[in-house]
Amino acid sequence: MEARPLDALNRARDKKVIVDCKNGKQYLGTLRAFDIHINIVLDDTEERHNGEVTRKLGNAFIRGDTIVLISPQ
Amino acid sequence: MEARPLDALNRARDKKVIVDCKNGKQYLGTLRAFDIHINIVLDDTEERHNGEVTRKLGNAFIRGDTIVLISPQ
Amino acid sequence: MEARPLDALNRARDKKVIVDCKNGKQYLGTLRAFDIHINIVLDDTEERHNGEVTRKLGNAFIRGDTIVLISPQ
Amino acid sequence: MEARPLDALNRARDKKVIVDCKNGKQYLGTLRAFDIHINIVLDDTEERHNGEVTRKLGNAFIRGDTIVLISPQ
Amino acid sequence: MEARPLDALNRARDKKVIVDCKNGKQYLGTLRAFDIHINIVLDDTEERHNGEVTRKLGNAFIRGDTIVLISPQ
Amino acid sequence: MEARPLDALNRARDKKVIVDCKNGKQYLGTLRAFDIHINIVLDDTEERHNGEVTRKLGNAFIRGDTIVLISPQ
Amino acid sequence: MEARPLDALNRARDKKVIVDCKNGKQYLGTLRAFDIHINIVLDDTEERHNGEVTRKLGNAFIRGDTIVLISPQ
Repeated sequence: MEARPLDALNRARDKKVIVDCKNGKQYLGTLRAFDIHINIVLDDTEERHNGEVTRKLGNAFIRGDTIVLISPQ
Repeated sequence: MEARPLDALNRARDKKVIVDCKNGKQYLGTLRAFDIHINIVLDDTEERHNGEVTRKLGNAFIRGDTIVLISPQ
Repeated sequence: MEARPLDALNRARDKKVIVDCKNGKQYLGTLRAFDIHINIVLDDTEERHNGEVTRKLGNAFIRGDTIVLISPQ
Repeated sequence: MEARPLDALNRARDKKVIVDCKNGKQYLGTLRAFDIHINIVLDDTEERHNGEVTRKLGNAFIRGDTIVLISPQ
Repeated sequence: MEARPLDALNRARDKKVIVDCKNGKQYLGTLRAFDIHINIVLDDTEERHNGEVTRKLGNAFIRGDTIVLISPQ
Repeated sequence: MEARPLDALNRARDKKVIVDCKNGKQYLGTLRAFDIHINIVLDDTEERHNGEVTRKLGNAFIRGDTIVLISPQ
Repeated sequence: MEARPLDALNRARDKKVIVDCKNGKQYLGTLRAFDIHINIVLDDTEERHNGEVTRKLGNAFIRGDTIVLISPQ
């Protein structure tokens, strides 16, 4: 159990996560880094929209203020 | 009775809560952590949209600025 | 008469208030707590949309940046 | 003539003002308080939408970030 | 020529300006005051929408975060 | 080559730039001033929408938070 | 592997990146500079919308708060 939300992100580091963004897109990838603004970096990133894979991106920086939810897979 | 809003979240810790987000989605789960930005972490998270269960997520970090309301169940 | 807006919220503490949110929903309940971000906590909360009662929530934390107006009933 | 915008609000204190909000609603009432975030408190508040009176509210706290314009009547 | 953007507003003080807002409305009036948030106060304010005059307002406080552009006439 | 983004704006000072705004409008003019919020001042400003010239403005202050992109012509 | 998200942007400096913006547009170019707000500067910038090239821009400053994602190509 964690006391602070960022502890949960810390435990998810180097694990597969799903990231939901405000524009309805999802990014699946390996969480490599995050900061207090919830800016994150994913590796092996796959973009999905409406359940379909729309792009394969390697490394991706996602700006924190576009993120709704991050969940380890 | 509480003097400050975060006291209410503190009392909801480790309890089932419903979280309404700005995009119309709801998340039900056990509140594990929160911070002053109202970033939260839920366990055993269930996503609902228009009253239907749309996803089962285990652990979920939800960014505070997407949250409208948090209510203990 | 009050000099600062938060004085008005302080006088509304433990009284019935109506809260209008940016998403068009209204929350009626007893104001238990607030902070400088206008995060609030209501008890005996009733959600209304387009004049209809849509949910009964007990205790509810509402994030300040979703709030348009708070008025004692 | 005023040097700073808040001086204009100070001169409007205890006077009738019209407040335009981002959601298209207007609030007419007596300006009782404001702060640097432009959070305001009105008395004898009347809500209008598309030129029609939609609600009579007594005391109303309006969150600053929803306000477009404040004009003394 | 000015080094800082607020110098341009300072030179526009007591002059006629046109103010474009994010909601598509325009305000024409005499710029009386501004601050670092670009909150402004106009006198002899005229509101226009789609090129039509929609309202005559005397003194008007306009919240900075609703403003797109300010141009001396 | 520049180390910081504002260095690029500094090199564009007194040059023709195109400014894209969030509302879909474009402003072409001579960049006279900017600050860390990316508030800018243009001279000889021309507004375009959907590729058409919609207005000729002399001096124009544009609020930083409405700007998407600034590119020297 | 990086500890902080900005480390990923630092490694992308002087490399080709794709930048997704909130308005649905994409910018491809060589990343020349960035700051903690994720304001960035690209060289040899190409704008795309719905998969089509819509503009060729040389040097482009993009304001951080409009950015969703930055990915090295």
